[in-house]
Amino acid sequence: MDAVRQPKRSGAFAALDTMMPVVWIFVSAVSGLKAEDGGMEELTTEKEAEESHRQDSVNLLTFILLLTLTILTIWLFKHRRVRFLHETGLAMIYGLLVGVILRYGIPATSYHNKTPPSCSLKEGPVSTLLLNVSGKFFEYTLKGEINSREIHNVEQNDMLRKVTFDPEVFFNILLPPIIFHAGYSLKKRHFFRNLGSIITYAFLGTAISCFVIGNLMYGVVKLMQVVGQLTDKFYYTDCLFFGAIISATDPVTVLAIFNELHADGDLYALLFGESVMNDAVAIVLSSSIVAYQPSGANTHMFDASAFFKSVGVFLGIFSGSFVMGAATGVVTALVTKFTKLHCFPLLETALFFLMSWSTFLLAEACGFTGVVAVLFCGITQAHYTYNNLSAESTIRTKQLFEVLHFLAENFIFSYMGLALFTFQNHIFSPIFIIGAFLAIFIGRAFNIYPLSFLLNLGRRHKIKGNFQHMMMFAGLRGAMAFALAIRDTATYARQMMFTTTLLIVFFTVWVFGGGTTPMLSWLHISVGVDPDQDAGPCGDSFQVLQGDGPQAEGQSKTKQESAWLFRLWYTFDHNYLKPILTHSGPPLTSTLPAYCGPLASCLTSPQAYENHEQLRDHDSDFRNDSDLTFTFGDTAITANGASGGGADAAGGSGWSANGKRSGSTSEEALERELDSREQELLSRGTRLVFPIEDHI
Amino acid sequence: MDAVRQPKRSGAFAALDTMMPVVWIFVSAVSGLKAEDGGMEELTTEKEAEESHRQDSVNLLTFILLLTLTILTIWLFKHRRVRFLHETGLAMIYGLLVGVILRYGIPATSYHNKTPPSCSLKEGPVSTLLLNVSGKFFEYTLKGEINSREIHNVEQNDMLRKVTFDPEVFFNILLPPIIFHAGYSLKKRHFFRNLGSIITYAFLGTAISCFVIGNLMYGVVKLMQVVGQLTDKFYYTDCLFFGAIISATDPVTVLAIFNELHADGDLYALLFGESVMNDAVAIVLSSSIVAYQPSGANTHMFDASAFFKSVGVFLGIFSGSFVMGAATGVVTALVTKFTKLHCFPLLETALFFLMSWSTFLLAEACGFTGVVAVLFCGITQAHYTYNNLSAESTIRTKQLFEVLHFLAENFIFSYMGLALFTFQNHIFSPIFIIGAFLAIFIGRAFNIYPLSFLLNLGRRHKIKGNFQHMMMFAGLRGAMAFALAIRDTATYARQMMFTTTLLIVFFTVWVFGGGTTPMLSWLHISVGVDPDQDAGPCGDSFQVLQGDGPQAEGQSKTKQESAWLFRLWYTFDHNYLKPILTHSGPPLTSTLPAYCGPLASCLTSPQAYENHEQLRDHDSDFRNDSDLTFTFGDTAITANGASGGGADAAGGSGWSANGKRSGSTSEEALERELDSREQELLSRGTRLVFPIEDHI
Repeated sequence: MDAVRQPKRSGAFAALDTMMPVVWIFVSAVSGLKAEDGGMEELTTEKEAEESHRQDSVNLLTFILLLTLTILTIWLFKHRRVRFLHETGLAMIYGLLVGVILRYGIPATSYHNKTPPSCSLKEGPVSTLLLNVSGKFFEYTLKGEINSREIHNVEQNDMLRKVTFDPEVFFNILLPPIIFHAGYSLKKRHFFRNLGSIITYAFLGTAISCFVIGNLMYGVVKLMQVVGQLTDKFYYTDCLFFGAIISATDPVTVLAIFNELHADGDLYALLFGESVMNDAVAIVLSSSIVAYQPSGANTHMFDASAFFKSVGVFLGIFSGSFVMGAATGVVTALVTKFTKLHCFPLLETALFFLMSWSTFLLAEACGFTGVVAVLFCGITQAHYTYNNLSAESTIRTKQLFEVLHFLAENFIFSYMGLALFTFQNHIFSPIFIIGAFLAIFIGRAFNIYPLSFLLNLGRRHKIKGNFQHMMMFAGLRGAMAFALAIRDTATYARQMMFTTTLLIVFFTVWVFGGGTTPMLSWLHISVGVDPDQDAGPCGDSFQVLQGDGPQAEGQSKTKQESAWLFRLWYTFDHNYLKPILTHSGPPLTSTLPAYCGPLASCLTSPQAYENHEQLRDHDSDFRNDSDLTFTFGDTAITANGASGGGADAAGGSGWSANGKRSGSTSEEALERELDSREQELLSRGTRLVFPIEDHI
Repeated sequence: MDAVRQPKRSGAFAALDTMMPVVWIFVSAVSGLKAEDGGMEELTTEKEAEESHRQDSVNLLTFILLLTLTILTIWLFKHRRVRFLHETGLAMIYGLLVGVILRYGIPATSYHNKTPPSCSLKEGPVSTLLLNVSGKFFEYTLKGEINSREIHNVEQNDMLRKVTFDPEVFFNILLPPIIFHAGYSLKKRHFFRNLGSIITYAFLGTAISCFVIGNLMYGVVKLMQVVGQLTDKFYYTDCLFFGAIISATDPVTVLAIFNELHADGDLYALLFGESVMNDAVAIVLSSSIVAYQPSGANTHMFDASAFFKSVGVFLGIFSGSFVMGAATGVVTALVTKFTKLHCFPLLETALFFLMSWSTFLLAEACGFTGVVAVLFCGITQAHYTYNNLSAESTIRTKQLFEVLHFLAENFIFSYMGLALFTFQNHIFSPIFIIGAFLAIFIGRAFNIYPLSFLLNLGRRHKIKGNFQHMMMFAGLRGAMAFALAIRDTATYARQMMFTTTLLIVFFTVWVFGGGTTPMLSWLHISVGVDPDQDAGPCGDSFQVLQGDGPQAEGQSKTKQESAWLFRLWYTFDHNYLKPILTHSGPPLTSTLPAYCGPLASCLTSPQAYENHEQLRDHDSDFRNDSDLTFTFGDTAITANGASGGGADAAGGSGWSANGKRSGSTSEEALERELDSREQELLSRGTRLVFPIEDHI
């Protein structure tokens, strides 16, 4: 028995162990039944462990049944076409109900009324403590500080504490699949077309929102101090932190309805892009604010150097995570390209899954943000790796992440409902809550309207007033705000924030989520737009509906010029990255200079010559929407090729396997693209107009 | 700050937290840097938590990269058709290499040489301890007893302990998907055809093997005592426990090769069925042995009442788990039948996944064995629910569990490799190891040969000598033996068992796994049998190869009579269960007595009349092998219908929607089946012969 004695660990799933941190094994049972026999001792421990294991199973089972119930009700709602309540709202309601039952329905089972034995130490809390019991040493780990009033009724809140998950679970288990799926299922064409606006809203908009909310809340906090409602410290940095976490808008609820109703593709892209990207921005922003530690004694006032350090942290973490995500995506693309892994779809899917997961871990290990890295990994995987996967794996990977995303999302939302009643340290402050509600609307307004005005100065296809109102309305708060808020609930300020965030999530998901359909029709936003048919001239569909004619063609010249950066990127991506990383794109032998010939033909996959068109077709299967490259390639060939059906041959002959043609290839490809049906309208003004019309 | 202070929990995935139980945060860092300022204290804790979080990420990343490497090498091996080393063996080798690096490659990083502070208590180890630090209370949880020699060099084995997972992870996270997949992907026709033999091998065979090995090992232990090699207690029950855990044979390695080579279907079914079922038996057997607690002082000698109690426990747990699994399957079938969930494949897949998972939790919560429940749940889901799923969900569910199973399996095997070097308490006892190797061969021989002899007395299609040798040879030990052995490594005996089990797994997977292909050809076992073409007369393919003619037809009369139980079940299943639980099978209106008319038409789905044949076709898509029912149905209609292509119409007219026909329907269906091409050979003797020819 001189080994490390491992008492059987509880946890139906080991994750549970952490999720339900307090497996408060019945102390008196142990201390009471102590026998001198080692065997008896073992037995007791085993029984105890069994009991707690069983309890954990029951707890998790509760969640699973909750989810099952949610799924069945979702089906019923979908079946009956009920739209006033989305599945996320539903999950929250069920969570609330179970929370109420757990809180008030179950009588406190008093297995023991004893206070656990305590021992004194002057050194202060250490992580590991040894307990010496007549020569035998036992190892204890720090769980946390315990409220002195809780010491004497540990068993009363036993049940409630059991269903309290470790906040890190949200960050490390539930969010990554949701965010990865968002990146992976991005509708690239609409996304890239509106990239400029999306980035503006996500970065500038979130920063504006964060600061507006932060400052307003600081006012509210000052007011509370005056009225005497504030009982503990609440710093300016806390307010800014609240501004950051509450600025993360939720892509789930509104967009699910948009998808169902086939609402306008550009509005969808704007909302989706904004809310996905601003999650990433909000995470990094909040950790930058935490990192804001001015030197000197007064640790919560403004300090320029600390501020710039925070900005540096923001840029560092964001770009680091971006690079991490993109790098893993590129590595996966290379591996899938240069091995014949696609002959074994199972291996391929497993590899894809592991590589995407490793992004998260890699970023966390390097001190970056895993969730952000996973987002960009998803986008990279969709853009490159996806083209190399076998047909079976494309479906498999898509469906795998869809299921994971669905389960994780509903879990988070039902947990949110549960948390309202089971979280132990809520601080409901009416003034703070009302102030926060006002602040988020003002913050959102300062984000959307001024930025839309600025963007419209540059955009050829203006973001109409009704779109702006819809974006204003669609600023729901959801999983990310919750996960950020629950991450640290140690201080008074953070507890108040958590409670307020929870209420904001409830309100926005139920009221705004439920109001999406009426709002869409009230704002006369076109629904029933088939995304596949929406491949006509950019934004044409809604312009016609709005009664505006196409914008002046003269503008496109300036557009084209200001888009030089993106154009450069596109050319580079199309001519070099796609051919190097995937089986699609033109063969490198035709795009690289002649002296790179051997390298080029080494890197170019045989399929690039042969299956060029075929693979592009694959690519478009998935997204229900044509890929950027595909759109170009396809239309280029339609314009060039003699017959529409001979696309394959045309592609083959166009980039036949000689290493001589170089330099002008990119220009040629571009020119061909400009002849295309899709770009017809735009190319009247200039032959070098780009399909991405949207930028600042 | 009067809340429960939750230090940021470590764990890239929360599961990790448990998997890597000792996040031995640097004690001196805390106790050294103690500042009076609360802010500073917070900071230190946060930095510490961050560091440990990063470390966890690195550890998990190591595993992920290990798996990635394994996948790439598997691909290379498959690509080059290397068969001497299976992927599981490969995963173990990589695990071994990383284990060696962790053990010997990394210098012990001595962040601190201090012993953690200790405190004394006379009461003995309690689960929760409070630490009073100048009025503030901190909560500590028991991690386990610690070896007194380990107290002073905690940091040295820090790294090694970090990569040691909680054993329960194997049971609760990794095994369920593996076992569920085994049940769900069962090739039903071959399985049911050999059901009698499979059950015999699994129950009787495992029991024999367990007792033979247990007794032999008791001899070995006595020998060790005599030689003076045994330094601690080793009871008879420990030997039996070892017999139980080491009797669990692994279905993975050999069968993967069988599948690849398309080896004989009946041999496949025998091996697969035996190894899957005997996993379940071994789990329950081992917990029954643990439950064997004779009353009185001498707790490790034979006691009849305790023995029968153990047998009762065995039967109780086994049947309870079976019922649990079947019940969840039935509920899922009913839900998928009576809702139109199949319009939303994502919801359907999610529900299927959750229900299957809840089986596990339900069984654990009720004190049964989750893994066993999951096996039977998988079989039930495949038999009933599968017929109700949409086409998309059938593929989705199959692929989802395939990926999970693949990842879990490779993870276990690479972890096994790792454990050889990183597990802290190995006890290598040459005598015990050699004895164990001998004992498992003898045990396996006592299982296979006598039982095959007995079974052959009853079987019409004998299990030939070469099949018996192959079964003897294919008794690899794998994931289940490992998981059972690692579950409890507290005592000297258990540690020795764990080490021995690990070595046995290595040896059998490498040597026997690698030797499967040569062995198959050496034993002249037919390979390249296309499972889809193998739907001819039962077992015909190998009988012809063996040069034996078909068995005497006179036997079939006796067969038929002794199969009455199974026949009853089949009729019941086909006439009542299938129609009630699925969209397939004959309408209940035609099978239930007339007075049940309203109930029957309420329970019968409209599809049962309409899509009867169509749904059966679905069913067969998945398994690469025709389903039992399908085979019957199909051939029945081929025999009855005027044209082969008109199966749909024939099916529809045969069971047209009247509620009048009752009573004799089952007989009719049976007779139709007997006319079938498949049963031609058998039906000469009698018109009521059953296709399941295999029983004791």
